[in-house]
Amino acid sequence: MNIGVLGTGMVGGAIGTRLIQLGHAVKMGSRTADNEKAVEWSKTNGGNASHGTFAQATAFGELLFNCTHGVASLDVLRQAGEGNLGGKVLIDISNPLDFSKGMPPTLSISNTDSLGEQIQKAYPRVRVVKALNTVNCMVMVNPDLINGGDHTLFMCGNDAAAKSEVKTMLHSFGWKTENILDLGDITNARGTEMMLPLWVRLYGAFQSPMFQFKIVR
Amino acid sequence: MNIGVLGTGMVGGAIGTRLIQLGHAVKMGSRTADNEKAVEWSKTNGGNASHGTFAQATAFGELLFNCTHGVASLDVLRQAGEGNLGGKVLIDISNPLDFSKGMPPTLSISNTDSLGEQIQKAYPRVRVVKALNTVNCMVMVNPDLINGGDHTLFMCGNDAAAKSEVKTMLHSFGWKTENILDLGDITNARGTEMMLPLWVRLYGAFQSPMFQFKIVR
Repeated sequence: MNIGVLGTGMVGGAIGTRLIQLGHAVKMGSRTADNEKAVEWSKTNGGNASHGTFAQATAFGELLFNCTHGVASLDVLRQAGEGNLGGKVLIDISNPLDFSKGMPPTLSISNTDSLGEQIQKAYPRVRVVKALNTVNCMVMVNPDLINGGDHTLFMCGNDAAAKSEVKTMLHSFGWKTENILDLGDITNARGTEMMLPLWVRLYGAFQSPMFQFKIVR
Repeated sequence: MNIGVLGTGMVGGAIGTRLIQLGHAVKMGSRTADNEKAVEWSKTNGGNASHGTFAQATAFGELLFNCTHGVASLDVLRQAGEGNLGGKVLIDISNPLDFSKGMPPTLSISNTDSLGEQIQKAYPRVRVVKALNTVNCMVMVNPDLINGGDHTLFMCGNDAAAKSEVKTMLHSFGWKTENILDLGDITNARGTEMMLPLWVRLYGAFQSPMFQFKIVR
């Protein structure tokens, strides 16, 4: 499958490399066509890996991953272009973390709105699925790294078929069906994005991002 | 020990009854001295159970539990009286849930502040320990009800001795040492209070409050 990965940071790199390993063709997108990290990434990931602008990566992908910083995501999608986005499935991993007021970061959107909802509202045709945003990027693509893979992945979105497609992708990453928890429509992104203030504090307490939330009943 | 429980709702009732079972003397406080639920609760809980105003319950307690609705808590503490509160340990279970804008509730304070911090700021001598606010009241006092007691309780507060005292109380409720996670100072209440938007959505998804968060590593 052709997949567009928006963002060249740790998340974009981890997702992109995992997708290549799974046999997909991946174009990593950034603000400029010759972003240093994207060039390096595509060089080291073989013939199925390429890079380009946000617009080029979005046009290339049948499926899209938003791995950009949350505070930049809406601008990135504007650059990606509504025509290129079309009615594609966008897996939104981003979090509206605002580091401008010091550490730990606060959220630039929360409580009565969420970034997932803002993206869906700005691009009504795009089938936004919020997922993976409460998980460290190493664990996103290799859930077995923690507790034998036994922990919870939250997802939400308005389109059932899109969520089903994303589940298949998550299975290929190693996530077990019983650990993927579909919360419902995209407004549930308020709940998962608002886990981040605790997430960053747990990171501080453990001095490690290698932890996960598990819902037990 | 003499303990003041502020609030006559499900949380106050569950905490109060558990404390009585553990041999403590408990005064349940409410706005009026003859609150119907408080009268009923003290009638059915034997000679160690009593009721009174917030001020009377606060004066009575060597240790205090804030089991009131978060949006009312600061007003309740004003009624409790600074003199009665003194330098006591206050276990703050409340959440700033705002139901006035429909369901699911939003938070009346969040992100750059928290109710735990506001209480600490309003009463600098009180030793506020935020705990139990991410757990359903049946599980608060009987953690074994879920997953054999194996799930996580978050706590935070500025006073180490107060947290140690609260840990002892939590142990008596059945919480295991390894499942009590001290996040640090009271500003960490931002993290735990902001779990509530996900909590209420999980409640909706499961149609049951019998679930818990477990941090796995």
